[in-house]
Amino acid sequence: MIKVGIIGATGYAGAEIVRLLYSHPQAQIVWYGSRSYVDERFASIYKNMFTLVEDKCLDDNILELSKQVDVIFTATPQGYLAGVLTEEILSNCKVIDLSADYRIKDVETYEKWYGITHKSPQFIEEAVYGLCEINRDKEVGARLIANPGCYTTCSILTAYPLVKAGLIDPATLIIDAKSGTSGAGRGAKLPNLYCEVNESIKAYGVTTHRHTPEIEEQLGYACGQKLMLNFTPHLVPMNRGILATCYAKLTDKYSYEDVKAVYDKYYKDEQFIRVLNKGVMPETRWVEGSNYVDINFVIDERTGRIVVCGALDNMVKGAAGQAVQNMNLIFGLPENEGLLMPPVFP
Amino acid sequence: MIKVGIIGATGYAGAEIVRLLYSHPQAQIVWYGSRSYVDERFASIYKNMFTLVEDKCLDDNILELSKQVDVIFTATPQGYLAGVLTEEILSNCKVIDLSADYRIKDVETYEKWYGITHKSPQFIEEAVYGLCEINRDKEVGARLIANPGCYTTCSILTAYPLVKAGLIDPATLIIDAKSGTSGAGRGAKLPNLYCEVNESIKAYGVTTHRHTPEIEEQLGYACGQKLMLNFTPHLVPMNRGILATCYAKLTDKYSYEDVKAVYDKYYKDEQFIRVLNKGVMPETRWVEGSNYVDINFVIDERTGRIVVCGALDNMVKGAAGQAVQNMNLIFGLPENEGLLMPPVFP
Amino acid sequence: MIKVGIIGATGYAGAEIVRLLYSHPQAQIVWYGSRSYVDERFASIYKNMFTLVEDKCLDDNILELSKQVDVIFTATPQGYLAGVLTEEILSNCKVIDLSADYRIKDVETYEKWYGITHKSPQFIEEAVYGLCEINRDKEVGARLIANPGCYTTCSILTAYPLVKAGLIDPATLIIDAKSGTSGAGRGAKLPNLYCEVNESIKAYGVTTHRHTPEIEEQLGYACGQKLMLNFTPHLVPMNRGILATCYAKLTDKYSYEDVKAVYDKYYKDEQFIRVLNKGVMPETRWVEGSNYVDINFVIDERTGRIVVCGALDNMVKGAAGQAVQNMNLIFGLPENEGLLMPPVFP
Amino acid sequence: MIKVGIIGATGYAGAEIVRLLYSHPQAQIVWYGSRSYVDERFASIYKNMFTLVEDKCLDDNILELSKQVDVIFTATPQGYLAGVLTEEILSNCKVIDLSADYRIKDVETYEKWYGITHKSPQFIEEAVYGLCEINRDKEVGARLIANPGCYTTCSILTAYPLVKAGLIDPATLIIDAKSGTSGAGRGAKLPNLYCEVNESIKAYGVTTHRHTPEIEEQLGYACGQKLMLNFTPHLVPMNRGILATCYAKLTDKYSYEDVKAVYDKYYKDEQFIRVLNKGVMPETRWVEGSNYVDINFVIDERTGRIVVCGALDNMVKGAAGQAVQNMNLIFGLPENEGLLMPPVFP
Repeated sequence: MIKVGIIGATGYAGAEIVRLLYSHPQAQIVWYGSRSYVDERFASIYKNMFTLVEDKCLDDNILELSKQVDVIFTATPQGYLAGVLTEEILSNCKVIDLSADYRIKDVETYEKWYGITHKSPQFIEEAVYGLCEINRDKEVGARLIANPGCYTTCSILTAYPLVKAGLIDPATLIIDAKSGTSGAGRGAKLPNLYCEVNESIKAYGVTTHRHTPEIEEQLGYACGQKLMLNFTPHLVPMNRGILATCYAKLTDKYSYEDVKAVYDKYYKDEQFIRVLNKGVMPETRWVEGSNYVDINFVIDERTGRIVVCGALDNMVKGAAGQAVQNMNLIFGLPENEGLLMPPVFP
Repeated sequence: MIKVGIIGATGYAGAEIVRLLYSHPQAQIVWYGSRSYVDERFASIYKNMFTLVEDKCLDDNILELSKQVDVIFTATPQGYLAGVLTEEILSNCKVIDLSADYRIKDVETYEKWYGITHKSPQFIEEAVYGLCEINRDKEVGARLIANPGCYTTCSILTAYPLVKAGLIDPATLIIDAKSGTSGAGRGAKLPNLYCEVNESIKAYGVTTHRHTPEIEEQLGYACGQKLMLNFTPHLVPMNRGILATCYAKLTDKYSYEDVKAVYDKYYKDEQFIRVLNKGVMPETRWVEGSNYVDINFVIDERTGRIVVCGALDNMVKGAAGQAVQNMNLIFGLPENEGLLMPPVFP
Repeated sequence: MIKVGIIGATGYAGAEIVRLLYSHPQAQIVWYGSRSYVDERFASIYKNMFTLVEDKCLDDNILELSKQVDVIFTATPQGYLAGVLTEEILSNCKVIDLSADYRIKDVETYEKWYGITHKSPQFIEEAVYGLCEINRDKEVGARLIANPGCYTTCSILTAYPLVKAGLIDPATLIIDAKSGTSGAGRGAKLPNLYCEVNESIKAYGVTTHRHTPEIEEQLGYACGQKLMLNFTPHLVPMNRGILATCYAKLTDKYSYEDVKAVYDKYYKDEQFIRVLNKGVMPETRWVEGSNYVDINFVIDERTGRIVVCGALDNMVKGAAGQAVQNMNLIFGLPENEGLLMPPVFP
Repeated sequence: MIKVGIIGATGYAGAEIVRLLYSHPQAQIVWYGSRSYVDERFASIYKNMFTLVEDKCLDDNILELSKQVDVIFTATPQGYLAGVLTEEILSNCKVIDLSADYRIKDVETYEKWYGITHKSPQFIEEAVYGLCEINRDKEVGARLIANPGCYTTCSILTAYPLVKAGLIDPATLIIDAKSGTSGAGRGAKLPNLYCEVNESIKAYGVTTHRHTPEIEEQLGYACGQKLMLNFTPHLVPMNRGILATCYAKLTDKYSYEDVKAVYDKYYKDEQFIRVLNKGVMPETRWVEGSNYVDINFVIDERTGRIVVCGALDNMVKGAAGQAVQNMNLIFGLPENEGLLMPPVFP
């Protein structure tokens, strides 16, 4: 039984780890870290877990925690983990970080887009970018996993085969993404009030959203060259779900079958990536509550572009589910352990 | 492995049985009945099950079906099962009916409230009203289970201890219930369009809703006398969830502890019924996607009334989850098999 | 042209006054008071008014303000106006208070339910409870209007004719109310976040909601005796709208026509109260954005009870619209001036 | 007083014309055409208009109607008006068509994208494309107005100055649009049910949506050359609102001020187009219920692209409001008559 500690257990992503691990046969949470709710029962904050979790929330002493557990999930604000991580912690236990602290290899890029100084750049090199379907092999033996962002997981997995196989001109790639509101977190902020979000849609962080360099870096590895793209997130009045609509110029006149073959090459054996049947486009409702990513594309012969859509649940494959998948990977468990629940509809 | 057939698999309730049984270790669906989608893949209708279910939908030949399976779930319109059920079918396999055909013991009452003639009243007596927490013992050996309605499950479980223990005057009971829109089914009807339901709330079926006599009958058994109450359902702009707010005159000056003791007496050992901590009232978000019913009450000393609220997911404990719980019961499995998923929030 | 000042212009109710007065031919806002946004443009907070309102927000110096305007609307927290109101202010201009400070005649009741000490009880007697359809005559010449609460306006108008005409036993009255989330205000509080409210319904303030004594007092006047009732508010995932479902025992066997005649007696000439056609129950979508209250009832011969529903827009007839209606009344304008916009659907 | 007839008065767009004209001082509806609801009161279908509209719905005899009114609005399915329009009708009265029948000058293009044969191509030349802000001058004396589509109004107005002034390369233009569900109409179709739309977002009509050639034609006029672009609509779980996010390569290194000057050149005097302050991006909530279009842009120096967003209410500026604006124009009334209501928030 893997002993698990969570720092930031009462944010939405942290609480989703709690939900998923409740059904995981080989993991047990022993530390519900929450600075805001120390000594309160976890189930008094997330009442869905009433009678299911009896534990109280604990303060976030990561060094002490690292001695008691096999793995720590940090679902914490940017900069937190970079500020406290030490070699001692990493030698005590595995760390899976849901923040962006170790996702970007170039410190300067990180500091520029996030506007904070990185406190422990010495661990960046070691950290493995935990996009399981692409970096699976690199995760064996890893001590520190940088769990990818929600928008980035969706964007990268959607565009990856096209970029990797050279079917599109990377310089023409535009990603227009739409997210449910849980991605904004549980902070009591005016723009996230029900009446401010409901019955409206908006773009935000236009040209400046922090997930941009993360997507660029990973897709850059795929095509072997530096890449700059436009990424525009939008806030949608729904709880969960991300849809990424990607546009790019095809490098040649490819047929549906050509492109399908490339997606099959990379994803045919991936349990959690579902390339849909021809003509069926992803909708977030079909993945809600699950670890699946649904993907499909349409070729526009008129303009020579391809339009690819990807959909996932930002709380699961976009955060907690992928974190659990990473845990499974680094502990040598079946990768899908605890992640087999089908999407919930409606 | 229990072989399962579903008639009406492509309605919301039928599809929820499919979702739940996908994770059930001892049941396997072998017949996806759907008059509307014969020969189409189930997963092309409910795309959440894409790659998870390969089967095509079949016509609803219940006699043939009864020879191939151990249990049939009928998630069908009122009157369907009563029109086709035979002794032969019941001798071939178990039947769990999610319609109202066998819920009400008095045929006349059924025919009056539902406005249809009952075609097979000879099976009414045998049918067991499948409210597991109350009728568990009667279900052993049963061939035909009348799975309770969504509003009724919520209303009865919420009020049952009060009625049973004589703490309230049954003649004063008023149930004001609120339901998400999935309870209205998947029929393409104008009043259920997004723009008609969204941003609005309404009462409907005022004084005439069909779940009224079902609640009255069951609560009548609890207090040993005939009962008439007001039940008013409301349509709420959300997918899932029922909240029942019940009002009644207390028969004496009972304290919080008095009433709590009565709820504990009946529900303390019930896994799926959670009587909340003092001061915490049920909210449907805390039970969404799960088989739990959350209940709590407030005594109003000013008026001498008690206000009790109950919340459940109408698709799970209010329909498919309870049906699976009934299946577990009549096949001698652990009652909670396949039903342990925690509520999904947010 | 009436000169208007608003204190609390950047709350939802205050901003709704701004929206309504923008189209009012005889009123002009000259003071947008907002403690939180001093010196910021009103239209930078409420961007719906961009290009329509150029003014900046001002601090809330009520005495100074009273010298510059004909009427002040206070859309402020409980206790604010009671803490600052003076005879001088009232001799300078009219005051229409959207808080509860002067709604309840009995100071003790106010202090008990609101948990604060009333700082200027000397003005309570003078204040007129501004439920226009009932207290219209008393408003002539009034200096201080206590604008009714949203739930109370809906509850009182719905039940008033029944209580006034003695058709129901007031001791049996139960009001189960449902409200959109704008009623919770624009404060950045966790329970009002999108993901906390969306896809859920809950009761709150059970037996303790502050609108209870206000309803009891006004309906008590109607029946000429003290009254105690159960009032239970519920939070609904929608922006606007209140539905009040009221239950009471009829005092005799009244027919539909009997009851209809009573509603007609009181409301036939009321422009903003629409008693619907037989069989049609109110839905909040049909009044959204407007000053209308829709009402209808069903008699339940089985239980001897009547079920009456009322629906209004909590921002308009439940707050700002009624405040403008009150302004029209005390300044001798046509009562419907600026309030004739039809409901917006969908 | 302009006498108005509406064919298709009980669709969402038709009913919105009714709502708007109710407050229009110089127009009066004398014919509520509705094939589905002949002889039923309009206000029994759209209960928001209860007590405000007494008329019953009439059959859609357009020739007879044309003799009784000054203007006919047709809010009808594609092909209807083309099938019945005659010279006689046009000589009797003005016609403002909310369908696409006369929007596209090239019959072949119309027939290809809409999949129907155009029955009266002889009127296409005469029809004026009623995008008021751009074609205002052409509308004087017009008999037949082709009222633009909702997506097209939003897309064209958002991109027009950039295209017209040559600031972008038209061949790189990509429009990713998001719409509320009222745009799908009031037909009782399964994909538009509440539970199918709620809590989900999807792209639809990818590369094939019918508004594509309409946008291409109009923007083609602006830049003086044929144009092909990608237009992708998305369905958003909200009632009203369209947001168009547009991407294109800038033709040079333009500054914010350069681009702002171009928008000002075309829109500075337009009452209904609001170019927002620097850094403020459009959100559909700020235009809901009104005739405004909010627009703003961000220049991405990294990629050399500009991102422009436009937001409007699809029912108002995207349909009925623009139709009324067109009516005002062709009858020589102030263009904003009856359209001055501010957006409703929240």
